[in-house]
Parts: sequence; structure tokens; C-alpha cells
Amino acid sequence: MGTTQLESVQEPKYWHLKTVLSEALDSDFAVGEILPNERDLAARFGVARATLRQALEQLELEGRLQRRRGVGTTVAPPRVGVAVSTAQQDWTDGAGETWQPVDCTTGSAPAAVSAMFDVATGDAVHRVRRVRVSHGQPLAAEILYVPDSSVPALSAIDAPSGPARARSVLRELDRLGLDGQDRSVELGSARADDAKELDRLPGAPVLVVTTRFFAAGGTAAVSVATYRADTCRLTFGDSGALEISHEEQARQAS
Amino acid sequence: MGTTQLESVQEPKYWHLKTVLSEALDSDFAVGEILPNERDLAARFGVARATLRQALEQLELEGRLQRRRGVGTTVAPPRVGVAVSTAQQDWTDGAGETWQPVDCTTGSAPAAVSAMFDVATGDAVHRVRRVRVSHGQPLAAEILYVPDSSVPALSAIDAPSGPARARSVLRELDRLGLDGQDRSVELGSARADDAKELDRLPGAPVLVVTTRFFAAGGTAAVSVATYRADTCRLTFGDSGALEISHEEQARQAS
Repeated sequence: MGTTQLESVQEPKYWHLKTVLSEALDSDFAVGEILPNERDLAARFGVARATLRQALEQLELEGRLQRRRGVGTTVAPPRVGVAVSTAQQDWTDGAGETWQPVDCTTGSAPAAVSAMFDVATGDAVHRVRRVRVSHGQPLAAEILYVPDSSVPALSAIDAPSGPARARSVLRELDRLGLDGQDRSVELGSARADDAKELDRLPGAPVLVVTTRFFAAGGTAAVSVATYRADTCRLTFGDSGALEISHEEQARQAS
Repeated sequence: MGTTQLESVQEPKYWHLKTVLSEALDSDFAVGEILPNERDLAARFGVARATLRQALEQLELEGRLQRRRGVGTTVAPPRVGVAVSTAQQDWTDGAGETWQPVDCTTGSAPAAVSAMFDVATGDAVHRVRRVRVSHGQPLAAEILYVPDSSVPALSAIDAPSGPARARSVLRELDRLGLDGQDRSVELGSARADDAKELDRLPGAPVLVVTTRFFAAGGTAAVSVATYRADTCRLTFGDSGALEISHEEQARQAS
């Protein structure tokens, strides 16, 4: 198509181009296929490079395209439905472990996290780092903040850091017995350390899920997990069964 | 600061600039304040315009900045915690109505939505359009898809369209009695119609919440709601009380 049609509409040019490109992705490209370079695409659709780039960014936001280092822009597979409600509380599941403990350090929590516990800003807490993996692909990177008071029986002697230490903290949390949780979801951009775990560039859009775990009337632990916004659709359900069995149907209902 | 420091780090330049800008926002600017223009900012931090723009985009993703038509870039207020679990099911609450019925039309649903009902793609359903407003600000725009089979007693005679029709459909849904719901959250970009309701440009990042409402073992209605990603933090809780009372504490825990 030429430029005429693009100029005749009231919407921003990039928005109209996005719609046109989206239809082209459906009809002319397969999942995983590499798109022509920006110069060729801009020429093909008769638009400026800047307009093209804006349209490609939209399609990336919508999960239709993926930009991958050293590969280029490819057509994305459908987003994966990722159950959020249930998986995080199985602290110590062994074989089918979705969350892989990576490390555990001791240090301060962000001010907003400290405020959720009854600890002063700057007080040291356990910081368990985990990565959620599915079919070999990283979905989320998490830091779980656990104050000393939640894991009083934690031995200070064996495994001062690393995955073994992380497992010790999780085991103690499991022993504590949690009686509830709540969570929030917001848009964020990946910090450098999270981006590395997620195989993305720093600043890539992520869905930040903050979960508070309650025990004995207080907040026992806080998890801040960043999910890849390009590949993940977070699911929440009344029951685990429902949200998983229908996940493919619920895809891209927008 | 000059360019030297920016060049000495391994992270992308825009990422480092983002961190520096974020600190400047904390120390030198108030909420609502208009930022200097891009040319001045680029000069002040000794970076190229393109780098500056990338950093500003990051800060917008994180909810620190807002770009407003005709105003410029302003320092954003803290995100608002928006309870998602409970509010949608009060179909007919009058006075404290959070969701305002805007319109109701009859037409087809997107293929992904049709697949959630037992209706063929292209079959006509009721499409109730609602807007969620808080303190006069639009938070979300929604289309609620309701097949005829869920509202069999709906009168075809009075109020064929408009808000009155929307209220009729909601009243019938209320009468049906729903026995569960599940939902998913994913990143999307605002369609032109939603963007208008939300006072944003088409393509602005939104959090797309797809909710299925169950009754008598089937799916009675599907809601596709787009929340402004710049201003909203979605909250999900075991109980409504918890998620609301602590919302300010949970802010920006990342």
C-alpha cells in the first residue's frame, strides 16, 4: 500500500500502520520468522523510519513481535498463561520446581518493602533470589524478602549464602505456615540484574507482581517478581484447575 | 553531570541516564511539575536527544512521568492501587458506582472471546461498554460481552441501546447469580476507542484484564478491561479489606 491511505485517517500514522502490519503478520508471516529490516519495511509501507519504529514498538507491547539481541525482530509465539495465585506458595516443591532458588543474601529491603513489615528502613532481611522457568525459558525473576523474625529457627552456621541458603530460608517459611496473601500487579521496566536473568535488555517492559504473605496476623514475607511482559499473560483464578485448563482460550481476548 | 560518567558504565546509556534522572525527579521536582523540554534536558545531562527520549520512555513505563497532550511531560503522582477482584461483580450498585455504564450495542465478539462461550465466532452478543472512574479520573475502559443465553429475560422492547440498555443487561446478569470468576492480566496498547475514554493517545500502554464470569457451570459473561498502565497498580487480595487498607504501603515495592 502507498502513503495515501495512511494520510487520510484521523488516527496517528503509526497506529494505522500498526493495524496494517498486524494483519500482514497474520497473513504473510509464521511464528519465529524474522522480519525484513526497518529500511525495507519502511519502503514497503511507504512510511518514515520513525513511524515504522513506533508501530513496531506497539506490536512489541502487544506481544506480537519480539526483538532479540543478535537475531533481529521476529514474529512472537502466543503469550504463555502463567498462573500466579498458586505457584508461589509451594516453597519447597522438589521435582516439579517452577521457582528455582538462585541465591540468598542478607541486606536491606527497598523502603516500600520495609514499610510492609514491622522493620525499620535499612534493617537487614534475607533476600532470596529465585527464577521462574518454564520449558527452559525464564518467565520471571524474583526477590523474596524475609525478615529474621519470620524464620527464627534458621541456622546461621551452615550455608551462609547461595542456593542452599535459599532453600533453608524457604524451608523455614514453609514450616511457619502462611494463612493468606495478597498481591498487586503494575507495569515496570526490568532492572539490570532482572533483565540478565530474563534474557532481556535493561528497561524491557515487565509486569511487577508484589505479593505479601501473611502469618499470625502480620506480614511474614514480601515477594517482588518481575515477569516478562512480552511473553507472559498472568492468570488469577478461583481455583487452579480453571485457570490452567482454559488458558489458551483466554489468550488475546482484547 | 557530563558525558564521562555515562561512558564509563557497561549498562546502556539510556539506562544509566534513567537512574540519574530518577534521582533528579526525587530531589529537584515536585509532583505535577512540568519538565524542561527535551533539548534543554539533553544539554543539561550531556546526552543525545535519542538517549534522553529512551530514558524518558523508561520513566513513563515505571509511572514516574506522564506525557500529556498540550501540557508536556510532568512528574507523575504515585500510582493508585485499584482493587480488581471485587469491584466488577457489583453489577448494579447505584450511588457508589465505580463502573459507569456508557453504552450497549449488539454485535460480534473477538474470536478469542467467542471461544470462551459456547457461541460461534461472529454470533451476536450484547456488548456493554463501561468506564471505571475514580475521583473524576478515568482508570479503565471495559467491554463486557454477554451472550443472549445469559440474559434470557432481557426485554427487547425498551431501551434498545445507550446507558439504559447497559443497565438492563447488568440487572439481568445480577439476577442470574454468578458462582465464580477467573481473570488474566497482560500488557497491551490502548485501542483508539479505549484511548479516548482514558484520555490517552492510541497505543498508550495498558494493562488488559480479561475476566470470565461463571454461572451454572458455563461462562456467562466475559469482560475485557483496559487499565491505564501509567496510573494504575492493580491489587488482588484474599479479602477486599486487606488489599484496600494497605494499598499505599504496597506502592512501588520494586
